[in-house]
Amino acid sequence: MRDSYHEELDDIRGCLVEMANTVGSQMSTATTALLDADVALADLVIAGDEQIDATRESIDQRCFTVLARQQPVATDLRTIVVATRIASDLERMGDLAEHIAKVARMRFPDHAVPQEVRPAFLEAGHVAEMLVAKAGTVIATQNVEKARELETDDDAMDRIHRGLFRELLADSWPYGVETAIDVTLLGRYYERFADHAVSVARRVVYLVTGERHVVTPS
Amino acid sequence: MRDSYHEELDDIRGCLVEMANTVGSQMSTATTALLDADVALADLVIAGDEQIDATRESIDQRCFTVLARQQPVATDLRTIVVATRIASDLERMGDLAEHIAKVARMRFPDHAVPQEVRPAFLEAGHVAEMLVAKAGTVIATQNVEKARELETDDDAMDRIHRGLFRELLADSWPYGVETAIDVTLLGRYYERFADHAVSVARRVVYLVTGERHVVTPS
Repeated sequence: MRDSYHEELDDIRGCLVEMANTVGSQMSTATTALLDADVALADLVIAGDEQIDATRESIDQRCFTVLARQQPVATDLRTIVVATRIASDLERMGDLAEHIAKVARMRFPDHAVPQEVRPAFLEAGHVAEMLVAKAGTVIATQNVEKARELETDDDAMDRIHRGLFRELLADSWPYGVETAIDVTLLGRYYERFADHAVSVARRVVYLVTGERHVVTPS
Repeated sequence: MRDSYHEELDDIRGCLVEMANTVGSQMSTATTALLDADVALADLVIAGDEQIDATRESIDQRCFTVLARQQPVATDLRTIVVATRIASDLERMGDLAEHIAKVARMRFPDHAVPQEVRPAFLEAGHVAEMLVAKAGTVIATQNVEKARELETDDDAMDRIHRGLFRELLADSWPYGVETAIDVTLLGRYYERFADHAVSVARRVVYLVTGERHVVTPS
């Protein structure tokens, strides 16, 4: 039987998994808002970010309380330290989904994303959702093999990102600078979202194996 | 007289101040590399980022060791938790200086930044250096008033950023999409650098007063 202290650690982990699910759903909604120029969906994402911030805040507080009251050492201490960092990554991923929704909102009733690059953003959205879903599974299962897979899974996002720049720089790009700015920033938001998902996975690898990768997405 | 445990906390704080100085100098060099299309300076910044990553790693390890061995509570615990977060902000600021240097390197021997927006980037560089210098002072002195000033100091960066977009979107913008992409991303890097400096200041306010602001730059 687990004591209440380890139950608390498990419960914090459960909150992180739930947070990953929420972030995934925010990203999915944001991508639809962007591609369909759907301002109601964009507003949902923007309003929904508060809950993610609150969850992060609550996880941080609980971790702090465990540190202060239980004074964990070794693996338990690592679990707490890693939990606050994962919460920080996930919160930032929520911000990035919100940024995407805000671009959709700003250009409404127009589409922020022209026809030529819609497939790229559709794919970026799918990859982002897959990465955060996998990150959630990795948090839940602490499966190191699966965690390591995210490193290569992320290559798909880099490929999409490079493809976007090729489109923007093609002589045939007819949309001018404003759309180029939007597409550049949107591409950056999806790329950073993916970087943070990889970062979550690396933190779980560190937690389980003690191996330190440079854990900050650059 | 201070015991060795509190000496260690002071010493970690000293490392953070030094890290802020290094990041400021990286940002200053990156801005010069960008404005002068100076590839040797850009390479210096790119090579120098490793040291910042190593410092962050070392601060994290030391904080972890203090947590494990000393099991601090109350203010000391908060000091340690805040120190690792400040180290994370500063490391990210170093990454952003490196990103700027990499854009300068990529466009060499050309200038990444055309004449019309040079003054904006010169000013962005100055504001960035001022913000990180002030953040360093705030870490050293824990001066809450000064920390709060960064919130308004950062408005200067937002203003520069908006000005950049106006330049990009002016009918007279003659440089095409590639330069627009560079300028958009560079503007974003300076803006995020400033956001993280504000985040450092907020963390110090939290440390001293217990007041929680939403501490993640969005």
